[in-house]
Amino acid sequence: MTAYDIIMKKRRGGELSEDEIRFMTEGFVKDDIPDYQMSALLMAICFNGMTPSETAALTSAMVNSGDTYSPSAELGRICVDKHSTGGIGDKLTLIAAPICAACGVYIPKMSGRGLGHTGGTIDKLESIPGLKTSLTHSEFISVVKEAGFAVSGQTGTLVPADKKIYALRNATATVDSIPLICSSIMSKKLATGAEGIVIDVKVGDGAFMKNYDDALRLADSMIKVAKLSGRKCSAVLTDMEKPLGMAVGNAVEVIEAAEALKGNAPADLYELSIAISAEMLSLAGKGSPDECTELAKEALSSGRALAALEKMVSLQGGNPEALHDYSLLGVPSDVREVVSETDGYITGISCEKTGLIALSLGAGRQFKNGDIDPTAGIIFNKTVGSYVHKGEVLGKLLTSSKRDMDAAERDFRKLFRISDTSPEKRPAVLKIIRS
Amino acid sequence: MTAYDIIMKKRRGGELSEDEIRFMTEGFVKDDIPDYQMSALLMAICFNGMTPSETAALTSAMVNSGDTYSPSAELGRICVDKHSTGGIGDKLTLIAAPICAACGVYIPKMSGRGLGHTGGTIDKLESIPGLKTSLTHSEFISVVKEAGFAVSGQTGTLVPADKKIYALRNATATVDSIPLICSSIMSKKLATGAEGIVIDVKVGDGAFMKNYDDALRLADSMIKVAKLSGRKCSAVLTDMEKPLGMAVGNAVEVIEAAEALKGNAPADLYELSIAISAEMLSLAGKGSPDECTELAKEALSSGRALAALEKMVSLQGGNPEALHDYSLLGVPSDVREVVSETDGYITGISCEKTGLIALSLGAGRQFKNGDIDPTAGIIFNKTVGSYVHKGEVLGKLLTSSKRDMDAAERDFRKLFRISDTSPEKRPAVLKIIRS
Repeated sequence: MTAYDIIMKKRRGGELSEDEIRFMTEGFVKDDIPDYQMSALLMAICFNGMTPSETAALTSAMVNSGDTYSPSAELGRICVDKHSTGGIGDKLTLIAAPICAACGVYIPKMSGRGLGHTGGTIDKLESIPGLKTSLTHSEFISVVKEAGFAVSGQTGTLVPADKKIYALRNATATVDSIPLICSSIMSKKLATGAEGIVIDVKVGDGAFMKNYDDALRLADSMIKVAKLSGRKCSAVLTDMEKPLGMAVGNAVEVIEAAEALKGNAPADLYELSIAISAEMLSLAGKGSPDECTELAKEALSSGRALAALEKMVSLQGGNPEALHDYSLLGVPSDVREVVSETDGYITGISCEKTGLIALSLGAGRQFKNGDIDPTAGIIFNKTVGSYVHKGEVLGKLLTSSKRDMDAAERDFRKLFRISDTSPEKRPAVLKIIRS
Repeated sequence: MTAYDIIMKKRRGGELSEDEIRFMTEGFVKDDIPDYQMSALLMAICFNGMTPSETAALTSAMVNSGDTYSPSAELGRICVDKHSTGGIGDKLTLIAAPICAACGVYIPKMSGRGLGHTGGTIDKLESIPGLKTSLTHSEFISVVKEAGFAVSGQTGTLVPADKKIYALRNATATVDSIPLICSSIMSKKLATGAEGIVIDVKVGDGAFMKNYDDALRLADSMIKVAKLSGRKCSAVLTDMEKPLGMAVGNAVEVIEAAEALKGNAPADLYELSIAISAEMLSLAGKGSPDECTELAKEALSSGRALAALEKMVSLQGGNPEALHDYSLLGVPSDVREVVSETDGYITGISCEKTGLIALSLGAGRQFKNGDIDPTAGIIFNKTVGSYVHKGEVLGKLLTSSKRDMDAAERDFRKLFRISDTSPEKRPAVLKIIRS
């Protein structure tokens, strides 16, 4: 077996065996296979794809490159995880995990920071004073046991193959390949050991998957890999043609999540929170998706989900009072209200550009290990479908980081498409695929 | 301009600009572009190809990576070069160059050694005692001036980009791509500066191009690149479904070439020698291809071509007597005659396997800088179309290198396909394409 033959086989459209995929992946991690052979293989995969078996073999080889966890063995109960392919204003973990915890399902959530328009879930949580996300494994398990869920940063040895392959893909224009995206996501989900995995596949201008068909193919690939790896999986295709909810940032998203758990969610956020939670509960064996929808609604409306979040915050060292007195999350030093210059229905809000504005305000990280301004972000007063009068506030821009507010305001105003006729209503959940 | 964007553009099927191609090629040679980005680009080129303009730009960027020559400026006359894509028993340079020289056309030929089933032209020439192929530039030019042609090894700075790119292609399964093959060949031909270039594109089991359509595409690509680079070019597609002529090796091919120049060429070798020479003469402005065919035949039959070879051998330090007393080329210590075990017409001779036997006898180089046994090789007594009687000699295996002659004999016998009916005659020249 040689790297040359394996690259040639994939170039010619052949199906690689499990051994061949393991040979390349292990060899690459150990520096036995040089970068340039791996990048040639990755490019050939971009063109010729991978079968579900190949993708599962790649995922498994990646999982085996680092530490693996079996939280359910330690907790004595099925564990469920969720993953989002990433969108603007996505605070679903902060809502769905407490809902599931409130229904008695364990959610041991390991999250990355990563780069992005806003921080990841752990960055958002860190806007809560005192809350720490770098837990030891035993602290992590003990928070899950008591609160029903915990959110911790990933350790250095979780799927090192993914880190190394991703860096290479990022330098060689081989990021956007369904089997490579699938194996990158699924390897981390499989390594952290949950039996049930719900994938929130965002679709649209603000998402990695710009169109429905690609999103469907990715969802299908992930479900097949999960199945071949002995895990249960549901994929929820969700709309990312506009930001999710009304808040984009870190502290502002914690506030919106807390409000959602108090029954004040915007319609799209509510619909998605219940749908994702129901899928997670159903994978945990709590009943049919319909039954679990009711469980999720009840956990939310009863306040039990909010209580679960309070408990988790407190156990991870944070001040749960911040979920009520939002000033404890920090107050932005600079706030700019942006008003509409015209009357009409808002028919669209450019989603990716919303993310870029949030980033420009300091809500995201442009470089690895860069700092985040937790108070920075955007609060929309109007969303798609709203009618706006000239002079009415469209939204607020927040920062504590001395950013160019005039430029942000100009860009913000350009986000909105405004028309005389009301737009068709788009559902937040586009499709659910179950294994 | 970034390597990432250029790779992505090619991956998406776009046409790269001259600047983009120069950026990648120069950057790669200077180690500014890492191997892994270049290999990703090469793989994307394997899938999406290159337009003639892109291929010409790549070729030109490669040429500019090293030294370039203008022999016609020094010699005051148009110079012509030939190149063969490589086959078994290919001693055409040793015949066509003297023919052209005898007709007053200058052929300043730089040759590589390379790896192969037998040595290259300079290895073959080095079986002549005393002959040296590492000439200084002024020696080279002076031999061309006096003998009409010279054959010298390539210098270290001739197209270093090709050396570096080829090594990467060879490790990443990206060798067999028409534009990459084309740019590799043409960069060396353009750098050595001849105004007219004849490419002998071998087609068949013993050639790099296994089928006619690929050979045609390669020929077409080379002619277009030559044209875009201001050179004249003809491509001759020639048969490599069986070895060319009756001798395969080094000294044995020098002998066959000398015999050809004395009027004793096998039919296929004669046909090809005249055809290639005529194209070269025609590119040098000696007349129409038909007129040049007559010139070539006359140069050969008159003995003037043989005289040109003798002169060149002598000027490069070799003993021209070796072209008459072949024992001066060395006598193999071990000779094995192989007889037929059956009666019938020879309908085929496996060409690539002939090369492997020659290699196993010591005629070729398995590793860079490896030694060659100049006396090793194969002499066929029968060829495709011959009738053979049981017990009649099919051919002879020669070596001075203590090789496994029993294995070579077994393999040699298996080369022949023998049948009751005579095969259809195949032409040696399949097609000629002129720019």
